[in-house]
Amino acid sequence: MRMSKLYLPTLKEDPAEAEVISHKLMLRAGMMRKHSSGIYSYLPLGYRVIKKIEKITRKHMDNSEAQEVLLPIMQTSEIWKDSKRWDKFGPLMIKFNDRKSREYCLGPTHEEVVTDLVRDEVRSYKDLPLNLYQIQTKVRDEIRPRFGVMRGREFIMKDAYSLDTDYQGLDQSYQAMYDAYERIFAECGLEAVAVEADTGAMGGKDSHEFMVLADSGEDEIAFCSHCDYAANVERATSKKTDIDFEVEAELEKIHTPEIKTISELEEYLEVPAAKMIKAVAMVADGEAVLALVSGEDELNEIKLTNYLQANELRAAEEEEFAELFNSVAGFIGPVNLNNVRIVADQRLKNMSGAVVGANEKDYHLKQVKAGRDFEVEAFTDLRSVRGGERCPKCDQGKLNIKDGIEVGHIFKLGTKYSENMGANYLDENGKAQPIVMGSYGIGITRLVAAAIEQNNDQYGIKWPKAIAPYQIIILPLGNDDQVQEKSEEIYQNLKAQGWEVLIDDRSERAGVKFNDSELIGIPLRLTIGSRSLENGVVEAMIRENNKKLEIELDNLEKEVEKLFADIS
Amino acid sequence: MRMSKLYLPTLKEDPAEAEVISHKLMLRAGMMRKHSSGIYSYLPLGYRVIKKIEKITRKHMDNSEAQEVLLPIMQTSEIWKDSKRWDKFGPLMIKFNDRKSREYCLGPTHEEVVTDLVRDEVRSYKDLPLNLYQIQTKVRDEIRPRFGVMRGREFIMKDAYSLDTDYQGLDQSYQAMYDAYERIFAECGLEAVAVEADTGAMGGKDSHEFMVLADSGEDEIAFCSHCDYAANVERATSKKTDIDFEVEAELEKIHTPEIKTISELEEYLEVPAAKMIKAVAMVADGEAVLALVSGEDELNEIKLTNYLQANELRAAEEEEFAELFNSVAGFIGPVNLNNVRIVADQRLKNMSGAVVGANEKDYHLKQVKAGRDFEVEAFTDLRSVRGGERCPKCDQGKLNIKDGIEVGHIFKLGTKYSENMGANYLDENGKAQPIVMGSYGIGITRLVAAAIEQNNDQYGIKWPKAIAPYQIIILPLGNDDQVQEKSEEIYQNLKAQGWEVLIDDRSERAGVKFNDSELIGIPLRLTIGSRSLENGVVEAMIRENNKKLEIELDNLEKEVEKLFADIS
Repeated sequence: MRMSKLYLPTLKEDPAEAEVISHKLMLRAGMMRKHSSGIYSYLPLGYRVIKKIEKITRKHMDNSEAQEVLLPIMQTSEIWKDSKRWDKFGPLMIKFNDRKSREYCLGPTHEEVVTDLVRDEVRSYKDLPLNLYQIQTKVRDEIRPRFGVMRGREFIMKDAYSLDTDYQGLDQSYQAMYDAYERIFAECGLEAVAVEADTGAMGGKDSHEFMVLADSGEDEIAFCSHCDYAANVERATSKKTDIDFEVEAELEKIHTPEIKTISELEEYLEVPAAKMIKAVAMVADGEAVLALVSGEDELNEIKLTNYLQANELRAAEEEEFAELFNSVAGFIGPVNLNNVRIVADQRLKNMSGAVVGANEKDYHLKQVKAGRDFEVEAFTDLRSVRGGERCPKCDQGKLNIKDGIEVGHIFKLGTKYSENMGANYLDENGKAQPIVMGSYGIGITRLVAAAIEQNNDQYGIKWPKAIAPYQIIILPLGNDDQVQEKSEEIYQNLKAQGWEVLIDDRSERAGVKFNDSELIGIPLRLTIGSRSLENGVVEAMIRENNKKLEIELDNLEKEVEKLFADIS
Repeated sequence: MRMSKLYLPTLKEDPAEAEVISHKLMLRAGMMRKHSSGIYSYLPLGYRVIKKIEKITRKHMDNSEAQEVLLPIMQTSEIWKDSKRWDKFGPLMIKFNDRKSREYCLGPTHEEVVTDLVRDEVRSYKDLPLNLYQIQTKVRDEIRPRFGVMRGREFIMKDAYSLDTDYQGLDQSYQAMYDAYERIFAECGLEAVAVEADTGAMGGKDSHEFMVLADSGEDEIAFCSHCDYAANVERATSKKTDIDFEVEAELEKIHTPEIKTISELEEYLEVPAAKMIKAVAMVADGEAVLALVSGEDELNEIKLTNYLQANELRAAEEEEFAELFNSVAGFIGPVNLNNVRIVADQRLKNMSGAVVGANEKDYHLKQVKAGRDFEVEAFTDLRSVRGGERCPKCDQGKLNIKDGIEVGHIFKLGTKYSENMGANYLDENGKAQPIVMGSYGIGITRLVAAAIEQNNDQYGIKWPKAIAPYQIIILPLGNDDQVQEKSEEIYQNLKAQGWEVLIDDRSERAGVKFNDSELIGIPLRLTIGSRSLENGVVEAMIRENNKKLEIELDNLEKEVEKLFADIS
């Protein structure tokens, strides 16, 4: 492709709208443009990368005996009501009526469509197992779209759905997808790790996320330093022991003027945070819930959501402290709190002698004891692990926490959807049984961003060769006829051999050409100038490590092949 | 692929929901399933055909120097308001608000997105020409979705947008797309003809549709028997002469009890239809319009819409005859009709002595003369041509009318969008000029249906080989070990040579296998039975013509190659 003809609007400066490096570089390298918040147009260079990732994904899905289909974006409300998720997705799901006032949504995922598709048609155990996949646009109206395609509202996903007669079959289908995912990310040139994950709105049993480690990742992952334990902090646990509350004394009310936070209390009372109770006022589907964790811990909202089986969980607003809790922000506590569910972290199960808010402005209570002064609905795991804690699996290593980008997520759904939606098959005895399902997603557009997060430097992108938009870029320097002719000859020869080649035939300064070639991150650059031609050589640069070397013109094609083979 | 594993739910009976053959066969051959009115899930076999058509389309677009992009489905209202089409599309466009109450639509087409994309970025004449294309899902909330994917609500289109500095450039870009379209349809194995077309809601100058002739086509096309004139009846003209109204006399009111239609009047008054005026009450964007055509002609609503530059045109409802026209259904006419625009077909320009409704129940007027008894706003072409009329181009041939399916549509848009949306470039003199645009669409999913309409028989589909989901199907008959082994061997060998092969390894009766293979329309079938194996032969059937022949086992691969080369 000639760069003079390619629609490639590169930018010299970082766009103000972009925070993370992949977002900046995708805009600067002319890969995409923003249409609206979280919605992008992919330009030729960007869409080439997407198509390459799709092709690699298809290959490994087909090799795993998954079959490609294409399911609708616009979906009827009926199937979502059948599965009982019509309300569960909340404002994340875009809903609208058609001209005949029938309710539809834009598919945020396709479990319902697949289950609906097979429920009338997969009749016998002989029709199973099946794995149907698609590469399709999804729409999720994120509350805070950000980081470019990392958290967009309209994005491309590869999603697959396995259908089995039993859980043993599901385990096999799940493993096949797990293996395929490892191959897909490896072939794309990405370092991705599988971690235990929360199942969230999908429901179901086991779940793994595939994470690309990167500082800009929105997820935190806990890794054991000793064994293979790895889990999203959303669900990670550790060998943190119960807190030893030795004190036991009478309840005491103390005046704490304007003392609202744990750290202010620590200073004022000279009591360590570990001896205090952090009481967090939450609203779960409109209902008041008080969550208690140790003063030194953080509430894990995902764990609380799962315990409550809530659709929507959020912190209480200022005015709700009075309305829903009959309390005061900064001074809330579990004692004398009526009509409010109280749930505590399991570390607090011997809670006594603790400091809590008095539900009255400028007052706290000391020597508080659960069971005596208030009742707790349950003690369960509600805290987030922290780096340095002991591994829950091997009990030897310590947990390290790293940031990661979720590029894949696989779920053992079980029979949740097939039971709700009546997707049964007849077993060998002619008895109706619910189909056992799994669901498997890869964020194709997000993967582009993750690849850039892992592969860039101050000059721009360093594409892994398997997903680079072009493999080779030729830079003719100057207007010398011989340079132009030789460059054209090399361009045509390499193209004829099947290489994907860009030639920068624009009438731009050498500096602009060098900068653009590095910005757009083509793995191998060949620079052709009059001086090097005189010496019968061409300068090659490997973008991966920015190493330059001279290759002989007479041997150019063989040298290119050799160099390219060594690039990762 | 093994049919025992393929998700291919074929149906023996025609589904009740399908009217036309392509719709019936796409359902019966397990290519797709209905999700909701006009919305389909494409199953593995159907999606393979779609992908083949997409691949052929991409090849010819790339060869024409068009560059592939991917533009959003969810589009902001702002750009549609800029182009002044936000209201023009009416209920065909699905609109909704996001969680922050911003207005969006689902893109029925992408002129606005492309114009918005380039308006800030294509700055110089040096950046042009450009042609950007995509293969993307479109959503149009059709009032009457029907015929399966022929008129769906969610469908796949290839759309391209050319950007030039001037009309000469546009002519070249348009011709390049015209040529590419001919190659695409030819390579898909379709007979398609280009016809002059109406520009409709796109606006602009020239326009051609590519039509696949088929009885189930929703469009009517007029062809000249002598020259190359071909036009959609929506815009076709003919050498129809003015009507000779020789009579001129006093206006006369006559009693015509319950006589409402032209044919009833013909009988009652013993006057030929050609001497009567057909007055059609229409409502254009809420305004009353009376359209007059000869009693023997039909009003062409597209031509009237274009004349009025209306967004929405429809026939008046029963109650609107009184409300908007102060008249009576069945007895409406142009005389004494106040506050109503009256437009007449050009054939009526000497109108006199005509019969029209009296705007009073059970009465008509005779001897009516335009200019004396009422005023006409304009005489213009408002009628539809009929078969047998003389060609407007060569004036020698006669027009034949055939049904067709529109599979492609190309438009010279000119500067309509760039002017409304401010997409300018700087010319060689540094002066801002609007970009000159063209737009080019192919209905990918509709093309699947059109291919079936052109290629089927009573047994099922007869795929053109370029878009067949598989090229070869192997039918092992019976449980004979030798048959199974030999079939497997042939299957593996043909696959290894790069053929796309299906093997019907299901434990079904021979009849079921034969029927399914014909239903799904694989171009070449190889039947392997124990008797033929003994003779060292295999039965081949060419689905195109259902011819059967024996080919020697020893020479099978060469024979397959030869047979396939001859298939169209």
